[in-house]
Amino acid sequence: MSSILYGKDILQTDTMSDQQLELILSTAARLEDELEARGQLDNMKGLVLATLFFEPSTRTRLSFETAMLRLGGQVITVADPKTSSAAKGESLADSVRTVEGYADVIAIRHPRKGSAQEAADAVNIPVINGGDGAGQHPTQALLDIYTIQKEKGSLSGLTVALAGDLKNGRTVHSLVYLLARFNARLFFVSPPQLSMPAEITTELREAGADITVTDDLTLAARQSDVLYMTRIQRERFDDPAEYEKLKGSYVLDMGVIRQAKPGITIMHPLPRVDEIKTEVDAYEGAAYFRQAANGVPIRMALLTLVTGRE
Amino acid sequence: MSSILYGKDILQTDTMSDQQLELILSTAARLEDELEARGQLDNMKGLVLATLFFEPSTRTRLSFETAMLRLGGQVITVADPKTSSAAKGESLADSVRTVEGYADVIAIRHPRKGSAQEAADAVNIPVINGGDGAGQHPTQALLDIYTIQKEKGSLSGLTVALAGDLKNGRTVHSLVYLLARFNARLFFVSPPQLSMPAEITTELREAGADITVTDDLTLAARQSDVLYMTRIQRERFDDPAEYEKLKGSYVLDMGVIRQAKPGITIMHPLPRVDEIKTEVDAYEGAAYFRQAANGVPIRMALLTLVTGRE
Amino acid sequence: MSSILYGKDILQTDTMSDQQLELILSTAARLEDELEARGQLDNMKGLVLATLFFEPSTRTRLSFETAMLRLGGQVITVADPKTSSAAKGESLADSVRTVEGYADVIAIRHPRKGSAQEAADAVNIPVINGGDGAGQHPTQALLDIYTIQKEKGSLSGLTVALAGDLKNGRTVHSLVYLLARFNARLFFVSPPQLSMPAEITTELREAGADITVTDDLTLAARQSDVLYMTRIQRERFDDPAEYEKLKGSYVLDMGVIRQAKPGITIMHPLPRVDEIKTEVDAYEGAAYFRQAANGVPIRMALLTLVTGRE
Repeated sequence: MSSILYGKDILQTDTMSDQQLELILSTAARLEDELEARGQLDNMKGLVLATLFFEPSTRTRLSFETAMLRLGGQVITVADPKTSSAAKGESLADSVRTVEGYADVIAIRHPRKGSAQEAADAVNIPVINGGDGAGQHPTQALLDIYTIQKEKGSLSGLTVALAGDLKNGRTVHSLVYLLARFNARLFFVSPPQLSMPAEITTELREAGADITVTDDLTLAARQSDVLYMTRIQRERFDDPAEYEKLKGSYVLDMGVIRQAKPGITIMHPLPRVDEIKTEVDAYEGAAYFRQAANGVPIRMALLTLVTGRE
Repeated sequence: MSSILYGKDILQTDTMSDQQLELILSTAARLEDELEARGQLDNMKGLVLATLFFEPSTRTRLSFETAMLRLGGQVITVADPKTSSAAKGESLADSVRTVEGYADVIAIRHPRKGSAQEAADAVNIPVINGGDGAGQHPTQALLDIYTIQKEKGSLSGLTVALAGDLKNGRTVHSLVYLLARFNARLFFVSPPQLSMPAEITTELREAGADITVTDDLTLAARQSDVLYMTRIQRERFDDPAEYEKLKGSYVLDMGVIRQAKPGITIMHPLPRVDEIKTEVDAYEGAAYFRQAANGVPIRMALLTLVTGRE
Repeated sequence: MSSILYGKDILQTDTMSDQQLELILSTAARLEDELEARGQLDNMKGLVLATLFFEPSTRTRLSFETAMLRLGGQVITVADPKTSSAAKGESLADSVRTVEGYADVIAIRHPRKGSAQEAADAVNIPVINGGDGAGQHPTQALLDIYTIQKEKGSLSGLTVALAGDLKNGRTVHSLVYLLARFNARLFFVSPPQLSMPAEITTELREAGADITVTDDLTLAARQSDVLYMTRIQRERFDDPAEYEKLKGSYVLDMGVIRQAKPGITIMHPLPRVDEIKTEVDAYEGAAYFRQAANGVPIRMALLTLVTGRE
């Protein structure tokens, strides 16, 4: 009996049904337990994953590969676009069609928006989007949701603050739609220059979401169960002085944590640079490395579901 | 009972006996069937393949690695020459002697003609040539022959046209000698500047081959069971205007296919750039992606035969 | 019952106890025998090794990976620092904490002295130092000692000459301390500009070591059971003429071997460039490629011991 994701591509979270979403989360939890209990799974025995990274990303690539290996599968990889046949002028469609002759499932990362869809259209095996430039990064959004569920015990009734650069972060854009499905109360915390795109805020509010827009990190932290930090990049500002002035307001340290809601969970997609002080790492609610580790069960779930090996 | 290829290197097809050639083709067919039936083989269990790519080649490297993994073996790899000890001035012989201490079989690609022989001379484990510059590329020639056999049911009594740049293509040079063994009737289709080297045409004719030299792609396609396309590269022409004038004559589109012998099989070593229109991909005789996929069973055959694991 | 190395990091040899050292050597010998007898081991089944090479090193990386694969484990790898998240400004501590979420043990190479310690401090899984710049390279020192033991049958009562650049070689520095533990008589053979740092010679002599300092390679070879060659690099000399004059004195050829103690074992950490003539390769005491191969059992021993899978 095949699941509702068998043979499917995983290109974005926005178009996923609630049923698909819940299947992914529950499969991740089950596989994580089974791996913990048995040390090694064999769901993917005999299958080969191709990780095609036309743009470097250690974190995403290594967690896909780990997921496949812990499931008993094998991996072939292109980690450096310069060593690929794309460098010889081959189209992406031709590249993935060739790889279709080798592998059973493809995880792809590519700097061009829409590239994952293009790859999926070219082949008959499942394609999982590992990030397509300014487009989507569905496995990140899924592991974020999975992390919130694990850290807080449930996805319902939560208040979640997203802070930093809400304008440019594709991860944050996908995530807020997912959170809205679970009726989360949301804080959008950013300087005005980096605020959430108005169409997203409007669309979510029209669908009934309770959203507070603010530039005050401490205010939001006081009322939130989860604080999702992102980096504010210097290059987003025309005026360096403006950047320097604002930067400090979006750096999380223990001072902010002490004023925050007790037990607040801190998340970050990583890599961080300065926006969370290392002093926060010892705080038990600092979940960002656990969040990264959750990339493995989420990708285990996706790999097994799309190949019918769950 | 060891096979006639046990412990041997695979450096070129020209010096292979008919018996060796047939053993490779029949082993590939058998392993392909077994893999299809059982999903995962274990012929190479406990063995390690080193893929040493001193020149990038995604296609060749990934298909070697896939072959090894599907046979239950494991792989270590150097995909980027800049990260290898060759960058520190180590000789090729020393590099492969070191790898001999780790692996059971080596697949090597290197830009220097003769390098695969040099590697084979340095070590006692089998070496498979994955392309040595202007030299040989035996696994490509073997998968080409294997593809023709699969697509047409047999290798005998065929008419095969080779079109494009016949002057510079090492793949085409090896392939015509193999085709001549099976008494194929041949069309060499190219502009005069890129014709097959005279010594090859002469040698084949003296051995009894039926060869028609022409610059007319449609004429050849009309009479051929297989059309093997290669790319004409702009940089081969002194006069860009000359290139632009000729280029169009060697681009395969559905117009040519409609005038060709019914059921004609289209092949290409890939990557293609412009020389086969993507409209041809939907034609059922378009075999170039199946051809790429055939690299796996051919390399499975070679890996098992040279290590005595067939 | 866990061993004395279970859960430990392997950062340097200087602080290893004699008991730890002997456990490593005996475990390497046992695993090498078992691998020889059974073809494939499964000690590391279900475990994942991350090889993180922030500086290229084919030899060290491939032998770690081979060791893991021959033990039935799996590998994820970052072979090129430019494709890693370090390129995005992530700290080493954050990078390895993330990898801790994927892997069970880390082998790291990094150009900065102290980096392996830094990595080990950041994570709870074992870290093995694969070379930290001007710092330590413990797996090389261990495989050197293991090679001497295998080649000579025992580590006691030996005379060992170390020749070439004794000033800058971290491998040689670690090795002499290990040799001194086994009461080896030592020859330090170098031009005065590249002599062993005085503090090392002094410290070893105060601990009772019998050390002869000389610039005469043949004199040392006449009395030594083992001759450990290293490369003299042109860039170490201010005056190129000085380099040219000296270079010849530290090139090993059959002329030197014929004057040496019969049966002398020749070692070299590789890669070599000119300092051992290829004519020496056929001499049965030329052990440098066997030495490289010994990297596999030594790393098998370390991987199993730190994870409790010996």
